[in-house]
Amino acid sequence: MWGGRFTEATDAFVAEFTASVQFDQRFYRQDIAGSIAHASMLAKVGVLTTQERDDIIQGLNTIQAEIEAGTFEWRIDLEDVHMNIEARLTDRIGITGKKLHTGRSRNDQVATDIRLYVRDEIDQILNILQKLQKGILGLAVQHTHTIMPGFTHLQTAQPVTFGHHLMAWFEMLLRDTERLIDCRKRVNRMPLGSAALAGTTYPIDRAYTAELLGFESATENSLDAVSDRDFAIEFNAAAALIMMHLSRMSEEMILWTSAQFKFVNIPDRFCTGSSIMPQKKNPDVPELVRGKTGRVYGDLMSLLTLMKGQPLAYNKDNQEDKEPLFDAIDTLRGSLMAFADMVPALIPNIDIMREAALRGFSTATDLADYLVKKGIAFRDAHEIVGKAVALGVQDAKDLSELSLEQLQQFSDLITADVFDQALTLEASVNARNHLGGTAPSQVKQAIERAHLRLEQLYN
Amino acid sequence: MWGGRFTEATDAFVAEFTASVQFDQRFYRQDIAGSIAHASMLAKVGVLTTQERDDIIQGLNTIQAEIEAGTFEWRIDLEDVHMNIEARLTDRIGITGKKLHTGRSRNDQVATDIRLYVRDEIDQILNILQKLQKGILGLAVQHTHTIMPGFTHLQTAQPVTFGHHLMAWFEMLLRDTERLIDCRKRVNRMPLGSAALAGTTYPIDRAYTAELLGFESATENSLDAVSDRDFAIEFNAAAALIMMHLSRMSEEMILWTSAQFKFVNIPDRFCTGSSIMPQKKNPDVPELVRGKTGRVYGDLMSLLTLMKGQPLAYNKDNQEDKEPLFDAIDTLRGSLMAFADMVPALIPNIDIMREAALRGFSTATDLADYLVKKGIAFRDAHEIVGKAVALGVQDAKDLSELSLEQLQQFSDLITADVFDQALTLEASVNARNHLGGTAPSQVKQAIERAHLRLEQLYN
Amino acid sequence: MWGGRFTEATDAFVAEFTASVQFDQRFYRQDIAGSIAHASMLAKVGVLTTQERDDIIQGLNTIQAEIEAGTFEWRIDLEDVHMNIEARLTDRIGITGKKLHTGRSRNDQVATDIRLYVRDEIDQILNILQKLQKGILGLAVQHTHTIMPGFTHLQTAQPVTFGHHLMAWFEMLLRDTERLIDCRKRVNRMPLGSAALAGTTYPIDRAYTAELLGFESATENSLDAVSDRDFAIEFNAAAALIMMHLSRMSEEMILWTSAQFKFVNIPDRFCTGSSIMPQKKNPDVPELVRGKTGRVYGDLMSLLTLMKGQPLAYNKDNQEDKEPLFDAIDTLRGSLMAFADMVPALIPNIDIMREAALRGFSTATDLADYLVKKGIAFRDAHEIVGKAVALGVQDAKDLSELSLEQLQQFSDLITADVFDQALTLEASVNARNHLGGTAPSQVKQAIERAHLRLEQLYN
Amino acid sequence: MWGGRFTEATDAFVAEFTASVQFDQRFYRQDIAGSIAHASMLAKVGVLTTQERDDIIQGLNTIQAEIEAGTFEWRIDLEDVHMNIEARLTDRIGITGKKLHTGRSRNDQVATDIRLYVRDEIDQILNILQKLQKGILGLAVQHTHTIMPGFTHLQTAQPVTFGHHLMAWFEMLLRDTERLIDCRKRVNRMPLGSAALAGTTYPIDRAYTAELLGFESATENSLDAVSDRDFAIEFNAAAALIMMHLSRMSEEMILWTSAQFKFVNIPDRFCTGSSIMPQKKNPDVPELVRGKTGRVYGDLMSLLTLMKGQPLAYNKDNQEDKEPLFDAIDTLRGSLMAFADMVPALIPNIDIMREAALRGFSTATDLADYLVKKGIAFRDAHEIVGKAVALGVQDAKDLSELSLEQLQQFSDLITADVFDQALTLEASVNARNHLGGTAPSQVKQAIERAHLRLEQLYN
Repeated sequence: MWGGRFTEATDAFVAEFTASVQFDQRFYRQDIAGSIAHASMLAKVGVLTTQERDDIIQGLNTIQAEIEAGTFEWRIDLEDVHMNIEARLTDRIGITGKKLHTGRSRNDQVATDIRLYVRDEIDQILNILQKLQKGILGLAVQHTHTIMPGFTHLQTAQPVTFGHHLMAWFEMLLRDTERLIDCRKRVNRMPLGSAALAGTTYPIDRAYTAELLGFESATENSLDAVSDRDFAIEFNAAAALIMMHLSRMSEEMILWTSAQFKFVNIPDRFCTGSSIMPQKKNPDVPELVRGKTGRVYGDLMSLLTLMKGQPLAYNKDNQEDKEPLFDAIDTLRGSLMAFADMVPALIPNIDIMREAALRGFSTATDLADYLVKKGIAFRDAHEIVGKAVALGVQDAKDLSELSLEQLQQFSDLITADVFDQALTLEASVNARNHLGGTAPSQVKQAIERAHLRLEQLYN
Repeated sequence: MWGGRFTEATDAFVAEFTASVQFDQRFYRQDIAGSIAHASMLAKVGVLTTQERDDIIQGLNTIQAEIEAGTFEWRIDLEDVHMNIEARLTDRIGITGKKLHTGRSRNDQVATDIRLYVRDEIDQILNILQKLQKGILGLAVQHTHTIMPGFTHLQTAQPVTFGHHLMAWFEMLLRDTERLIDCRKRVNRMPLGSAALAGTTYPIDRAYTAELLGFESATENSLDAVSDRDFAIEFNAAAALIMMHLSRMSEEMILWTSAQFKFVNIPDRFCTGSSIMPQKKNPDVPELVRGKTGRVYGDLMSLLTLMKGQPLAYNKDNQEDKEPLFDAIDTLRGSLMAFADMVPALIPNIDIMREAALRGFSTATDLADYLVKKGIAFRDAHEIVGKAVALGVQDAKDLSELSLEQLQQFSDLITADVFDQALTLEASVNARNHLGGTAPSQVKQAIERAHLRLEQLYN
Repeated sequence: MWGGRFTEATDAFVAEFTASVQFDQRFYRQDIAGSIAHASMLAKVGVLTTQERDDIIQGLNTIQAEIEAGTFEWRIDLEDVHMNIEARLTDRIGITGKKLHTGRSRNDQVATDIRLYVRDEIDQILNILQKLQKGILGLAVQHTHTIMPGFTHLQTAQPVTFGHHLMAWFEMLLRDTERLIDCRKRVNRMPLGSAALAGTTYPIDRAYTAELLGFESATENSLDAVSDRDFAIEFNAAAALIMMHLSRMSEEMILWTSAQFKFVNIPDRFCTGSSIMPQKKNPDVPELVRGKTGRVYGDLMSLLTLMKGQPLAYNKDNQEDKEPLFDAIDTLRGSLMAFADMVPALIPNIDIMREAALRGFSTATDLADYLVKKGIAFRDAHEIVGKAVALGVQDAKDLSELSLEQLQQFSDLITADVFDQALTLEASVNARNHLGGTAPSQVKQAIERAHLRLEQLYN
Repeated sequence: MWGGRFTEATDAFVAEFTASVQFDQRFYRQDIAGSIAHASMLAKVGVLTTQERDDIIQGLNTIQAEIEAGTFEWRIDLEDVHMNIEARLTDRIGITGKKLHTGRSRNDQVATDIRLYVRDEIDQILNILQKLQKGILGLAVQHTHTIMPGFTHLQTAQPVTFGHHLMAWFEMLLRDTERLIDCRKRVNRMPLGSAALAGTTYPIDRAYTAELLGFESATENSLDAVSDRDFAIEFNAAAALIMMHLSRMSEEMILWTSAQFKFVNIPDRFCTGSSIMPQKKNPDVPELVRGKTGRVYGDLMSLLTLMKGQPLAYNKDNQEDKEPLFDAIDTLRGSLMAFADMVPALIPNIDIMREAALRGFSTATDLADYLVKKGIAFRDAHEIVGKAVALGVQDAKDLSELSLEQLQQFSDLITADVFDQALTLEASVNARNHLGGTAPSQVKQAIERAHLRLEQLYN
């Protein structure tokens, strides 16, 4: 390809070390789509004849069929997906094949391919994300009244509903959707036409090519366009946030399926056992997803480091953008698919959750509020309840298990109504009745709004 | 604060180790603004009297004045900015001060404060970013015709204009603006009213508080709202991308001021010398900014790691969100300020740039294109020019310095017009005349569009 | 300092932006020690007179006293700790002060200071680490027979002893000790004498200076020595591993103190409560340490990014090595101090642990082994026990709570001795009686060996 | 494998999502070696008969041959390399194959396999590293007198020798060797015998197995041993440092081969050209290696994040240790191989280097020293030379190109001998004649010592 200036052949190890076809063949479909659009544009502006255009398009379609049939031979000596396809095209249709590369270079070609690829993957990921979100809503709506302990510091804090907890997961994922949609705007700009770095001398029509490929616009500066990998990093950052959310959900599912919590069961089909310990049923999927989080963080760090301090325009370093990006995409897609199946299938142990909410003094705040309503300052009420809790800790009883006499030791304002007014779980959750609160009626409304918000985002 | 339940005092080292007032006092202004809005809302819904509200607001205003006058005493035993201010308020206005905390907890309070703080910082950063962008446009418009070598692989590739190169920097920074604006939307949602984790039993009006504080909306789920730090991570990811861009600009300025390049001078006021080597004039600012890039990457990694695997809702871990976030903000702001002053003051050495563009065979592609126009297939033209380059390398001459006879050795289609048609820098840059190309007329248009785009984004 | 070549003064913002005295004053002690050694060496080789040396040493000692008394005025316009101290020295002792800088530059001076500083910090950290290790041994030796459930996948796996679990923590920390000791070797090499980058023209005696400062040797190459920051990165990597270990211990302590586990109590003095929820007692210290893990990871990433792609020799970027390094040191030291106090004070709830070990089918493997001993192939035994477990899950009974008849449904080889031979916790742990196993006698021996290993490492 | 307790089959997607055989088959050789040693130990302690042992060993050897011949069928439904090999063994030798797993579990098996694998890779990497180091020494010894400009801040600082510069690279790599050797000690400890988490009930002889496998010792605690991945992280941290060093060497080679520097040529066989620009010869290998640095940083971050906050003992998360580790190993090995070939083949352009050293006022420090020797205080000398430099900048002349009259404007102490005594490159480098200095005689000695140090490390 560049014989003239060189006095010796490329070293065999170097040829393999610097080739990318092993991994960039992954976006052959985008490469071919880009080439078809480019050829169509070249014909429109008169650089190719209609016949040449048609030959090229037909040739490329055949090659795509070969690749998908598994009969295409990828050659490392041809370096990358682009040269492999171009060489095969020339094999098939002769000299016309060589004209395809007019007015572009591999620098803008690869930048275009990756953007198309990431755009397609974002669309797929959004689909799976939506499936997961709807699955969560479907489970949440069944559990607007199911009470469980809410935790802060992993200590029992206040009762919440399981539906409310699930809706916290939903909110995380909805922000993820927003971020992916914002990211997609910046992915969907076309570098093609930037050529090697400075543009091309041919009378290209970039707006036309952009339209054919579904890009919102063409990029504004050729030097920037061939060296910009922001979109990959922005996507990876969004992916890292999603994985972080999944890791939090994972942590909770792992806790909840432990012998100590037993809040939920994960159906057997999502678990594996042990070849040694016959009793084991392990929450493999959430554990694995929690572990995979680090991987997507690492990919992000790889890409950020890659781009640090690179002078313009394209440098060979940039070839290293692909594998971390692909790894982030694959990891994210797989993890979301597993969750989209598994999360809606979770089986809460309603009785155990309720039992746990009754322990851990989860209504202590409500008792303090009860005293405040009877005229005690909150700080004093806090002190009184604290002492009652200390007694409960000592006797291994929850507040509602203390006798009225025991409670009255701490304040004679406590009367028999305390058990109904303050120390029941229902009283506690129903009282938190405002936008964002855990009251069942609020959670119901939140679920309804959630369906509307999904519709708006995914229209 | 929590005496009742505890049987021994907090260990002194633990008290200091777990306190945050050393660093969270930074957002005292946001904390006070949030408290004033909260008190106003409590009065509106009847939880506070008008008098109580006014006492609280006046007390808080006085405290803010004390803090800004440097007379406020921050106490580590009061843990954080919130308790320090509340305790001082109660000192000043008595029992009414204690009522301020009704219907909120520190969990939603701190989440609100940080969001207000980040929102304010984003607005400041956008201002500085805009100043830098305008500075770049101002320099670029002077150099739409200034020719320099364009590089790929740091090897001379094709001539470009300095204005075009500067506009590549502009494009990077414009994407950064977009990302910050997108991020700001998600920052600007109000967690206040989520209380500890489940909402509150008081009849709060969250929409009213949100309006007073300029939030676009209130958050939808209390569990999520007290444990969500996405906005900090998203901001930090955007900051990391900006620093990456600054690191690339830095690398170029460092190269360009070296004795080998000499493409630009940085005015002396932005440089420092050496206490040993009298000749040294070092590009300290770009070097330091390049170095600071790692720092913001590290902050991002800190925050991502922090949130990995945390179960809901608030955990003490989250206190560790602040210092990395603050470090990212300070580093970014300082770096942008330095660049906003320095970049527009760069002094290009126009003659040296032009001279460099004449070397390095930058017009080799144009010679190949010249041959293509005379009917030779591009691959053959490439081979011919490659051989001419090999001769030039051997004789240490650029293509335009070879004689016509020497050139004709490689192809007799080369005639005397080659020197004007293909081997001049002006011919080369003028020919790349399309959207995104380096032709001076295109760069002029790009600069004009850039002003419009700035107006749209920063309206 | 570098007036001659410059035509304008440094910009005020740039002066502050590029100064380091705000944070490098931290190693004033090392800077002064290094200067004293340097002056002594210069006197030894005749570059300074004995009188000059003594004046310098006395001047520096006085300055150190001023700094420690808080009367020293640090000036940003003097950039860094070095120039601040040198300027003050010249103030005090006149022209002789200026001679101190003979034969060195700030490039080798700062590299020496940081190494001395890191070496001192490693020694302190090793001390605290040792205290923590001994604290763990002290607790472990009390609990060689205390039985708790061992987990894999956070599912009950097999019974282990609490002492054995604690010894797992010990092992992690012992590897950390080894790594710090290995790292210290590479920290403890002296760059002084490398001058700006190429060495100096003065007849210096580097071996002598190295000896005075307790360095094992002088570095071998001046270009490398002024630009090497490996030791900081290697230290930070070791610190990240330690924090990772502390995060795992933290996670366990947080789980164990939850209402669901209740395996251990953390004494009140290490916990804090909630200003809202009177019952809360939060494991703040382990939570905070778990959160701080991200910070040290981030510092590591900062330093690695900082050094990526830097050409030799010293670049201003390197000034950014300090703050991440200091942050890692402070975070690690504080976290270890908190753990060294808290971990030995943990109070295990022995009955609850034992009760938990009885649930979760922890002896299922032992039942399978029992059947193997009666002649059944392990795979078949596994199947049999799996079915018994399924029955137990259905009836909410552990294996030892099933009746003999129920067990015999699955295999008539099960006889009455099964309850003593296989289904007791003691039988299970005692049987794992080999190097590394959980049998009490093994754990005792492991603790004894641990004391010896500590002695060898910290001799 | 775990039928008894489960009521439904594993979901097909989950089976693939959680399988590891796709990537862990990579260490089949280590798995087989470990199994052979384990079987031998079981026979020694009487758990297997000699015949059984021999059948197992022969079966495993046959399987290894099948794998290496490419005829082994890897099955995803068998999850991992261990079960694939064990299942095949049982196919071949019947029920005896099942006995191999006695006294171990996959938890300790996989931990052993990875350690063996990493140990083998470290040994290979050390070999390649040594080849690179010797290649550098071979080049350095030819260039102890070749003068080039030394840079700080990428500004010309002082003349150094090319040999000295190469020896800075050598020093970096020697520290890397030390770190890998230290890391290897901690890799080389055997977890086998820890079984699932608590040890095994069989009378195993771990010291014997360790000896057979070349481990230095057996691990001390079963819980720790199955969950410890420190060795992978420590290795990856060492790998990140090596890549950082390679990135610095890369940056320099990229600079040096630019049209602006031209300090070295990289032979054509290590470079590639452009399919568009006929003149291009790109330093692909150093660019790619610089880019790959980010990848190994990312792998490190993945592993650190993976282990953060994991409770003991083994969790499924740990399966995610392999791919980042493998990626780091492959990237490092490939990069070192490319460098080991390329670096010794660099061709310095001696004349151009010398010419560059003559420009940029590289001997300004020497002129200041010259004046100091004539009795001027260094600070004054610095000022004088600074002014001379300013004149040179203005007239575009180096110091040695100014006339004696011009120099004497600034100080009449300057006499004709200045050109020989201070302003020649040889005078400058020869004067830096001490351990670590750039004087040719020092560099020669450093090279000699380097050979000895290599011998000691790689004995």
